[in-house]
Amino acid sequence: MTHFDLAIIGTGSGNSLVTPDFDDKRVAVIEEGLFGGTCLNVGCIPTKMFVYAAEVADTIRGSATYGVDSTLDGVRWRDIRDRIFGRIDPIEAGGRDYRVNGPNTTAYLGHAEFVGPRELRVQVGDHVDEVTADRIVIATGAHSVVPEAISQSGVPFHTSDTIMRIDELPSSIVILGGGFIASEFAHVFSALGVDVRVVTRGARMLRKEDERISAEFTALADRQWDVHLSAEVVGAKSSAGEVALELASGELVSAELLLVATGRRPNTERLGLGKAGIATESDGRVTVDEFGRTNVPGVWSLGDASSPYQLKHVANHEARVVAHNLVHPDDLQAFDHRFVPSAVFTHPQIASVGMTEAAARESGADVTVKVQEFGGTAYGWAMEDTTSIFKVVADRRTKLILGAHVMGPMASTLIQPIIQAMSFGQTAPEVARGQYWIHPALAEVVENALLGLEFD
Amino acid sequence: MTHFDLAIIGTGSGNSLVTPDFDDKRVAVIEEGLFGGTCLNVGCIPTKMFVYAAEVADTIRGSATYGVDSTLDGVRWRDIRDRIFGRIDPIEAGGRDYRVNGPNTTAYLGHAEFVGPRELRVQVGDHVDEVTADRIVIATGAHSVVPEAISQSGVPFHTSDTIMRIDELPSSIVILGGGFIASEFAHVFSALGVDVRVVTRGARMLRKEDERISAEFTALADRQWDVHLSAEVVGAKSSAGEVALELASGELVSAELLLVATGRRPNTERLGLGKAGIATESDGRVTVDEFGRTNVPGVWSLGDASSPYQLKHVANHEARVVAHNLVHPDDLQAFDHRFVPSAVFTHPQIASVGMTEAAARESGADVTVKVQEFGGTAYGWAMEDTTSIFKVVADRRTKLILGAHVMGPMASTLIQPIIQAMSFGQTAPEVARGQYWIHPALAEVVENALLGLEFD
Repeated sequence: MTHFDLAIIGTGSGNSLVTPDFDDKRVAVIEEGLFGGTCLNVGCIPTKMFVYAAEVADTIRGSATYGVDSTLDGVRWRDIRDRIFGRIDPIEAGGRDYRVNGPNTTAYLGHAEFVGPRELRVQVGDHVDEVTADRIVIATGAHSVVPEAISQSGVPFHTSDTIMRIDELPSSIVILGGGFIASEFAHVFSALGVDVRVVTRGARMLRKEDERISAEFTALADRQWDVHLSAEVVGAKSSAGEVALELASGELVSAELLLVATGRRPNTERLGLGKAGIATESDGRVTVDEFGRTNVPGVWSLGDASSPYQLKHVANHEARVVAHNLVHPDDLQAFDHRFVPSAVFTHPQIASVGMTEAAARESGADVTVKVQEFGGTAYGWAMEDTTSIFKVVADRRTKLILGAHVMGPMASTLIQPIIQAMSFGQTAPEVARGQYWIHPALAEVVENALLGLEFD
Repeated sequence: MTHFDLAIIGTGSGNSLVTPDFDDKRVAVIEEGLFGGTCLNVGCIPTKMFVYAAEVADTIRGSATYGVDSTLDGVRWRDIRDRIFGRIDPIEAGGRDYRVNGPNTTAYLGHAEFVGPRELRVQVGDHVDEVTADRIVIATGAHSVVPEAISQSGVPFHTSDTIMRIDELPSSIVILGGGFIASEFAHVFSALGVDVRVVTRGARMLRKEDERISAEFTALADRQWDVHLSAEVVGAKSSAGEVALELASGELVSAELLLVATGRRPNTERLGLGKAGIATESDGRVTVDEFGRTNVPGVWSLGDASSPYQLKHVANHEARVVAHNLVHPDDLQAFDHRFVPSAVFTHPQIASVGMTEAAARESGADVTVKVQEFGGTAYGWAMEDTTSIFKVVADRRTKLILGAHVMGPMASTLIQPIIQAMSFGQTAPEVARGQYWIHPALAEVVENALLGLEFD
């Protein structure tokens, strides 16, 4: 039995909880997987590095539009992969080493399970430790969900955990799923020359996005890839060098590799939460209040284990809040989930913040909407853009921005002034006219979207 | 003698003064050059379209870094040129036609000169008209300055007015100047395969930028082009297919074409301002107050004719202000020149707003500075960036941002949250932590720059 001031389960955003406030305290850091969590190792960071290479390949393919002729001679998959993980893996190892050999912390490289309210059973290899702590933070993240039709079929498949480490590009890939992970990998593989098939049960891809974005993205996806919408997978089979999904329609969709990207579920199932009496939501997330507290005193949670967002910037925010709250019990800060943006690094790129148009109308707001085409601005002319849009949803009476939904180059950066405006309560006309927008920068798309809103 | 309610000289930003407020008024629009002014016809818009093609060529050349092998097969200059002006020229013609044949306005396609306070002599071809107006707006823009060493030498040369319309790419070009126009064309031509030589009297290129940006840009320029700094041109000579600049050092710098980009001067010399008693600055700009009024009642000025900025977004802002003031003499608005950003669309791209570090220190502020490398963020990893920086200058006591200076991809859009923060008086910590920044978008560079500032 070893007692700690703080025990952290999971080293994604949880790893940042070891602040200087704990310099003279005893901290346990428990990790059964890769140090640094999903984002660093198998999530946002490596995927965006692949996406960038994909963007370069797409630029080459499209160069003739601009009067520049080029040939895509080839893609060195192993070089791309090794460049990316050659950068990431040492960071993972360094993070692990710092917790194993660094100051203040005791690292347990194994699995933790609650056996009581602030009591853990930690298994490292064959060795089992009993760990107690005044404060325990559940920051265990989430994992890929694999539908039974696949898992029980016995066919070989990849998830986002493994697909980036394959040795050779396949000639074709079938991607099961229509969300952001599926869409990003479809973009990466198709840009790198792989024949992409997408199978999703949704009637559209990216269906959590604003309806217009989702519809237009789906139309563009359909032009690039072999997309099967509203498809129910009833089974799968494999033969030498091929995996086939069996759809309820009777259709078979086959490819050299199968990637399953049908969503992620919080890593809470194997934590023994019941034994500690820690409450969870129906989807498995740990129930927390606005301060990150579970129902059990001294037990906290953050990130994908408890948050519905499954976004690294949200997990980081929650970690900062919990880090504060752990040492300031009389001055608790609340999570700020008012205006959480997100992006999908596809081609075109997608970004959004706030309410979709449909949600805004449902909310009873007096909604006004402007859809600004990138092609209607000078930089859009330069890009010869014909598909990109910046949609803003605002309240006709208060003139406040309710949401923005962007599909086009640099969407994830272009949307920032809107996030800023919403976060600080600036009205659309104020933001549009209260500052300069450099002419003819791409940011003029935002200015024009705001100016296009009609108010009373 | 024809009398108008309003006479506008110049159809760049001036053209937008014909608001619905003048629907029942008589308006004269006078233009001796291209309709739409510098920006549309020979400035920001076509240059950025060339720049975009240049970016595509650069991406192709650098693709191997990302594991994507490609060959730049060739550049179709005429196709690029014709695509660009095929879009712009009809807009120019349409704008002209709308003023010639449209409602409310009388167009004079010729040269105007003051003969009295609100009296103009307008020459259209051989025909001369006397025009009087209750209000006259001078919006005549600026023109390229050509040093006497060139103009008197008799060598053939181009300015930004003509260089974009040439029929064939030269094998080499010598660019005289080190400011933003020189730098942008150096970028465009070198990316399109032309051997570029730059000759500038400055010790650095882009010397109006923050010292660090200017120094690092100059170093990068020197690696790409044959750059001659601190060079005094004493003469020029030409022979078949070649122009040579003679430097005071005795050196000759020669190329197939010569582009002169040594600055621009307001178009005020031939306006007869003296006859109307209109005051000017020592550099030729029309003197205006904060409302856009000259010293002569009823005569206004805006844009490059009177503004020191020579930026389209400033001219547009001034036009909006003057448009208001023309019809609301009892409720005048003032120009807002507090936080004027600018950008240079080079490779790397440059953007800045507010004070340079040196200016901030000179102002007596208690200065704190952070230089954030793009390479220190996740998106920077994806870009394999090694040269881009985001520099923020702030006041240690007030925590307000005093300036930002950016060199790197998308600088002109990336800087927008800083412009917004400065314009609305938001402190650096507030902006950094009061909103979400999408991970791992390029915008995280801004977040990290702000977080890196040290305050008391």
